[in-house]
Amino acid sequence: MNIHEKFMLEALKEAKKAYKKMEVPVGAVAVLDGKIIARAHNNRETKQKFSGHAEFIVMEKASKKVQSWRLSEVSIYVTLEPCLMCAGALIQSRVKALYYGSKDLKSGSIDSIINLQELPYNHKIEYESGILAEESTELLKRFFRELRENKK
Amino acid sequence: MNIHEKFMLEALKEAKKAYKKMEVPVGAVAVLDGKIIARAHNNRETKQKFSGHAEFIVMEKASKKVQSWRLSEVSIYVTLEPCLMCAGALIQSRVKALYYGSKDLKSGSIDSIINLQELPYNHKIEYESGILAEESTELLKRFFRELRENKK
Repeated sequence: MNIHEKFMLEALKEAKKAYKKMEVPVGAVAVLDGKIIARAHNNRETKQKFSGHAEFIVMEKASKKVQSWRLSEVSIYVTLEPCLMCAGALIQSRVKALYYGSKDLKSGSIDSIINLQELPYNHKIEYESGILAEESTELLKRFFRELRENKK
Repeated sequence: MNIHEKFMLEALKEAKKAYKKMEVPVGAVAVLDGKIIARAHNNRETKQKFSGHAEFIVMEKASKKVQSWRLSEVSIYVTLEPCLMCAGALIQSRVKALYYGSKDLKSGSIDSIINLQELPYNHKIEYESGILAEESTELLKRFFRELRENKK
């Protein structure tokens, strides 16, 4: 298990916390100087906040920790490809790097719906995808299957 | 002065508050049933929050007011074209409509850098642009001119 998988495993633990709260299971951690400085999971329904995505919350927490809106030295690990809002937040906060797990073909805005690196924004997001992607996909599939079954 | 200009004038008042705090002068209001339910201006530097954009804050405030992450009946008025993060937040919160003032050719993500309506996201943003655009542009120009002069 390499270092990125190690951090993604921690993000997956967060995703499982979301699952238990009946939230879409997505988790994230923020890493500075090789150490986790913030952890978060999706809590949109619980908190009734449109910005309650794991990676958005983890960036907010990291920002408080470093006492700056600039996260130039912070890397973000998130189990699912970020949406447009979160992709934009990665740009706004100037994050150092993004590591994400599974692709989100419906609303993923790093390299699914749009290809962020090809667009002329003032900050380019360095990223790597597919880290523990199977584990993330499996968790999401199980969640939505359960949700459908409970709705019957 | 039509109804949209009337609300944009209120957003411009907010932009002027940002100006006085040496923040990039952008302001916003949120409107529900013909009434302003929230007002905000850019406060990124003051609060050291990457999400401190006027329209983002006004959506957060509106969300608290209606006690839901869904803003399906809420319209947002903002003096400058939203960035990618804020465009994504408009999608995430399912806002009813967006009215913006001047275009942001460097990072505007409604119809400048990307054309949001043409992308296959699950919520289409209805919008109108150019409302009191001259006033907004003039305020921004004055701000950046002053900033440059002070740096000399």
